[in-house]
Parts: sequence; structure tokens; C-alpha cells
Amino acid sequence: MTISDAAELLLAEDEFLILTHRRPDGDTIGSAAALCRTLKACGKTAYLFPNEEFTPKYAFLYKELVAPEGFRPRKIVAVDIAATQLLPDSAAAYENEIYLSLDHHGSNTSFARNVLTQPRRSATGELIWDLALALSVAPDRKIAEAVYVAIATDTGCFCYPNTTPRCHEIAARAIELGVPFGVLNKLFFETKTKGRFFIERYLFGNLRFSESKRIAGVVISQRQIAECGATPDDMDNLSSLPRQIEGIECSITLTELEAGGYKGSVRTGPLIDASALCGHFGGGGHPRAAGFTTDGGAEEALALLMQLAEQELAHA
Amino acid sequence: MTISDAAELLLAEDEFLILTHRRPDGDTIGSAAALCRTLKACGKTAYLFPNEEFTPKYAFLYKELVAPEGFRPRKIVAVDIAATQLLPDSAAAYENEIYLSLDHHGSNTSFARNVLTQPRRSATGELIWDLALALSVAPDRKIAEAVYVAIATDTGCFCYPNTTPRCHEIAARAIELGVPFGVLNKLFFETKTKGRFFIERYLFGNLRFSESKRIAGVVISQRQIAECGATPDDMDNLSSLPRQIEGIECSITLTELEAGGYKGSVRTGPLIDASALCGHFGGGGHPRAAGFTTDGGAEEALALLMQLAEQELAHA
Repeated sequence: MTISDAAELLLAEDEFLILTHRRPDGDTIGSAAALCRTLKACGKTAYLFPNEEFTPKYAFLYKELVAPEGFRPRKIVAVDIAATQLLPDSAAAYENEIYLSLDHHGSNTSFARNVLTQPRRSATGELIWDLALALSVAPDRKIAEAVYVAIATDTGCFCYPNTTPRCHEIAARAIELGVPFGVLNKLFFETKTKGRFFIERYLFGNLRFSESKRIAGVVISQRQIAECGATPDDMDNLSSLPRQIEGIECSITLTELEAGGYKGSVRTGPLIDASALCGHFGGGGHPRAAGFTTDGGAEEALALLMQLAEQELAHA
Repeated sequence: MTISDAAELLLAEDEFLILTHRRPDGDTIGSAAALCRTLKACGKTAYLFPNEEFTPKYAFLYKELVAPEGFRPRKIVAVDIAATQLLPDSAAAYENEIYLSLDHHGSNTSFARNVLTQPRRSATGELIWDLALALSVAPDRKIAEAVYVAIATDTGCFCYPNTTPRCHEIAARAIELGVPFGVLNKLFFETKTKGRFFIERYLFGNLRFSESKRIAGVVISQRQIAECGATPDDMDNLSSLPRQIEGIECSITLTELEAGGYKGSVRTGPLIDASALCGHFGGGGHPRAAGFTTDGGAEEALALLMQLAEQELAHA
């Protein structure tokens, strides 16, 4: 299915409800907001589903667009949702009724009646921008702002390798349209919650280094998470931080789970296979990023993994 | 002077030597490398001045372009250099002989015979790209790489408010030309030296908070800098880090100088005047970023400044 096909499907219908995914991020919310405003610009009625997990950080994007109580949609559109398990609990009833899915995940399970998935897009927002153009809508400042947030958050502010030329072209137009990108970037990329600050400080303060100083690891308990006041959001992507230190080839983080036991996360450079390392504990994943769970003995598990990683380095 | 004027000046001459500034960064080196390759593409002879402060991090940009011993230039071009005090010591002899200065600093002192300064440009590299086009040179991958580094480093990877639409347009072309932007961004934005890591860890681990928890401060001694193995580069911009913590309106850093005494740096949000605060110690600067020096009593100075900032907050 092409973007023009999707545009035709949307033009033929009305009364849209737009779904976002669980733990909604900048791409799903920004894409939904941009699509909603685009459809309105086409003279359609469109609202965002009131995702119970929306956070205040993104309120400026969704607050004017959430469906009023009693709204009876005729067509459901899912944005940036790769599989039905990622629907919010309160949207489960729509699972088999999704008219169109707009996404950039190669893993999209084609759960919708019509599916437009473009895995080369950095963000679903990038696709929504081109869909707006296909609908003959010239993006205004609000649409551009929503797409800018979608793209910037999914590319780490144009830093990650998934960034495309189209991302930059859209960002150029967004700046010209007056999107307050400096304020947005400060909010999304240069602000740490207190909880995040304290858990990062704990992590760096307690990082252990292997003999070669090329492997770093840490154990984080529920008590420490509570003392730091860190939320689940604050714990996102912690395990990749030690890899930013020059010379660190492997970072190992064991985080105690609320239900007990530990979740292990391993991040590696090209010399160590993270997936094989996690295999020792029955886990797996990708060569550079893998995980496992273990019932206990976190300190022993960390010591063993650091030793195994050190051996792999010695043979690399 | 316009870009076409600068292009004409360059086309009329030959045997160029291109100067970069002291403590050379991505913009001065990237701009110089891109200009050098552009002039060669025009059939000219052009080299970079062997700046004694070039660091290995940027070797991939300058290494093929540095002037061989004995090269006798006919025309000197300065890039990204706002004033002659910023010339490397070994380039002091050229001070009064600079034919053309290409820059984006509003503070450029017009020390050269011909000056093209465009303060709205995010980076001098952005200007060099358009100069290449004015010289009818279609940027190749190497030129695009040099300009990409110049722009990305001066905008914090397209994050800072100085980012322009043109930055993004150029980045789009650079990616299309095959510039390995993912690798470059990892090197420049996601890699910390061990010295930087340890000094950040010290800073965050020893940060003190005022009663309201909205003011944060720290004293860093030469002994601690030495223990962390931190170089002057590693100390760059440390004082802005605490301002990234949500709710922190004012960050105060006192760093011991090698020669003795302390350098104070104050960074504030809109509620506190950093310059007025530093005025209590005979310093000054901008409303959001200011500094001062003091002979000693760093702990007392920090306590006093935190108290004064707290008072200002109470009245805001």
C-alpha cells in the first residue's frame, strides 16, 4: 500500500478515532496529533483516543484533540502501533476493528484491515508528514510541531543512525513555520527528572570496572530505585549509559524487579556478542543488545558475566 | 560583502593557507577542511595551517590537508576566527596579512582585509557550503562530511536554538552523499572520555542543594581534577550540567585554577540574574551565564552565593 492509497482510504471515510500505543512516546503522540489536525484540515471529524497512559509532558500535543465522552467513531486508525498487544488496555475493544494502521516498524503484524508500514522511515511522524502532503494539506505550525516532536524523539534529535534525509528536510520546514524547536529540544533532550538524576548518579557512582577497565557493570535494587524516587520512565535505557564511556566495550546492568528477581541488560560494542552472553542465563536478543532474567544472586551473576565478557575480549 | 563577492576574491587568487582558531573545534576544522577541498576542486592549491593544537579526534578531517613544510602561501584565509587573539601562537606572524576572514561570529573584529561574517549562520560550516555552491563546486562526500561535522558540533547535533533551516537542508544532502553521520554522531555526542566521566561523577556525587532544592552548587579542587584524570577539554561546560535537572533554577560551580584561586561559573533560568549574582564577587557576564574569580574561601563563597540566589528566588 502506498501513501496515496492511504490518503484515498482516509478521504473516503469520516468520524475517525486515532489510537496511540501503550506507554505513549513522542512518535505515537506526535503522529496521532499531526494526523488528527490533517484530517480536520480536510473537513473530517477526528479525535485522539484518550490513552490512559498519556503523560503531562506531551499535553501540549494531545490536550485539544482527545475525543469527548460519547464520541462514536466510524473508523479507527492506529499510528505507530506494531501489534495489538501494544494497544492500551482501554482500547482492547477496538482490536479487530482497526481500519488503517500507519507505522514504521518492520515488525508490524498487519493486524489492521489496511496497513501502510514503511520501515525505512525514522519515525511514523515522517510518514504522516508525507501523508498530509498527499492529502493536499499544507502543514501549519501545529502539524509541523507534532511531526517535529515525533521525528526528534525517535532519532535522539537527529543523532541516531535511523535519521533520514527526509527527517532533516521536514525539520527545516518546521523551523521555517515557527515551531519553537529550541524550547522543545530543551524539554525533551536537556531535562532530567530528579528521579532520573538520582538513579544515574547511583549507577555511575556504583559502576564496577573489570580488570581491563573495558567492562562495566552495576546492580540496582528496588530499595535504591525507591530511594532515588525513580519511576519506570526514569529507568528507561539506563543500561546503555556506561557504553558512552570511552573504551567500555560491554555494559551489564542488573535491575531488581518489583515482583522479585532481576532483569539483566547487556549492551556491547562489536567485540562482544551480547546475545551469547545472556544465553548463559537463558536469555538472548541482538548481538549488541540483549537481556535475561534471574531469580537472585545478582552480585554473583554480575561477577560471572563480567568474567565471561573479559574472556571474550581476550580472544577478540 | 556577499558570498558571491567572497567567491570572486577566491577565484582571482591561488596558493591558499587556511587558518583555524586556538583550541580548534569541529566548526573551525570542518570549515577549513571543506574550504580546502572546495578550492582544490576549483583547481587551486590550498592547505590547512598546521595548528599545533589539532587533536586526534579530528584527524580524519585535517590529516590529508595540512601544509607540507616549506609551503609558501600567497593568500591567507581565516575561518571561524573572530579576533586575532584567537590565532594559534604559531600563526601570529600572519596577523596582519589575512586576505579573507569567513566567520559567523557577530563579534568578529574585522581584522582581515576582506571580511564575510554572517551571524545568523549556526556555524561557519553552513556558510562554507553555500560558498562552495557559489564557486560552482558540487560538494562531494568529503566536503559534505567536513561541513556536517562543523554544523553538528556547533548546534549540539541540531538541538540548540541556533539551528537553522539551512543546517537541516545541508544535513539532508550530506546523508544522501553517504556521510557516515551515525558513526560521527556517536563519536561526537555519545562518547565521554574517562576523565570526563570521572569529573561528571564527582560533580553529581558532590552537588549540594539549597533548602528549596532549586539551587545546586559544587566546588571542584585541582586535586580532584587530577584524581579524575580530567583535561581542560574535559572541564568544558561542566557548569551547565546541573541546570539539566528538573526544577534547578541556578547552578554554581567553583573550580580551582592551576595558578591558585577559583573560577566561579553561574548558570541560571529566567528567575535569577546570573550576572548580578557574580557581581557580588566582582564578576559579570550575561543574565543566564556569568562568571567571576576569587582568591580562596571557595566553600564560603558557594554558601553565600546559594543564599543570595535563594533570596532572589524568594522574591521572584
